[in-house]
Amino acid sequence: MSRYAEPMARLIEELKKLPGVGAKSAQRYAFHILRSSDEDAAALAEAVRNLKASLRLCSICNNVTDIDPCVYCASPARNQRMVCVVEEPTSIESVERTRAYQGVYHVLHGTLSPLHGVGPDQLRARSLVERVERGEIDEVILATSPTLEGEATANWLATALHRFPVKITRIATGVPAGSEIEYMDEVTMARAMEGRREI
Amino acid sequence: MSRYAEPMARLIEELKKLPGVGAKSAQRYAFHILRSSDEDAAALAEAVRNLKASLRLCSICNNVTDIDPCVYCASPARNQRMVCVVEEPTSIESVERTRAYQGVYHVLHGTLSPLHGVGPDQLRARSLVERVERGEIDEVILATSPTLEGEATANWLATALHRFPVKITRIATGVPAGSEIEYMDEVTMARAMEGRREI
Repeated sequence: MSRYAEPMARLIEELKKLPGVGAKSAQRYAFHILRSSDEDAAALAEAVRNLKASLRLCSICNNVTDIDPCVYCASPARNQRMVCVVEEPTSIESVERTRAYQGVYHVLHGTLSPLHGVGPDQLRARSLVERVERGEIDEVILATSPTLEGEATANWLATALHRFPVKITRIATGVPAGSEIEYMDEVTMARAMEGRREI
Repeated sequence: MSRYAEPMARLIEELKKLPGVGAKSAQRYAFHILRSSDEDAAALAEAVRNLKASLRLCSICNNVTDIDPCVYCASPARNQRMVCVVEEPTSIESVERTRAYQGVYHVLHGTLSPLHGVGPDQLRARSLVERVERGEIDEVILATSPTLEGEATANWLATALHRFPVKITRIATGVPAGSEIEYMDEVTMARAMEGRREI
């Protein structure tokens, strides 16, 4: 039996479900909340509840959003005919940080992973294929990670889209900016050599 | 004054000049040598002396070698008209590990670095330019690191070689194989997007 009163034990159990939060941290957070004002505790509870209640997926690109369509799909300043395909909503931030991309996104919410039972039907790709089919898109940039699953997903999507007149591109695999080639693994180095470009 | 006898103190001083070797390690190495057999100590001394006496730079590519020309420049199995330009002899190993490259090399022994007084004249690039000028080379692959100095060096070489009819390529900068794009810095991500290729 827990040495804590039931409400405390229950909050600790829920907090422990957060990634990277163990028993010690959960306990620390719970006692912090106990000591904080009624308003602060209520605000946290409300923020958690509100997150799930008010966020949804963009009906066009599947990005997590509070308005539909999302800010990217609704923006007249962005090129709606150029679509960058990413694995997760969090990947969008990586591309946005470059401040160089002016197109829109499509979020798959995962990668192909036969071992984990994720096949093409489990990915949110259908609406993308339909948009390409309707001729709404000029270029699809496959920006899944250059991991095993990310590559498989990119290849599968490329195959699915190749029957339509759309430009399909893959982000470059290579030596990261600022790195010494001396410390590169052979796969990355091979891809950097293979992907060399005329200058 | 050192608490060690002069020969011991002198060896410790010399060993401390090795990269990453501090007083403690140098002392440990020195005592290890003291305790080892006369043959082992003599073999180590001879190996060190021999290294400098018998290694030289390849007269064609500047690689460190015991035979001249080096194994790459002397190999009939390798494409002598495709040259991969690297900063250091150790960089060759990165490219060789890919097992995909069948051309030869050119070692610059450094990068442009105005702050450290390294200008074009301090790099070993002249023989490369001469070989290109004589029409001996079809493609020059600039495989300097995508660091500030490496990029400056690649750009300078490209400019110097552009007046000759030779293909000049740069290795790809991008997301390394196996990495999640979520964790990429913005410069690398921007280069990966910019360097995307049609598939």
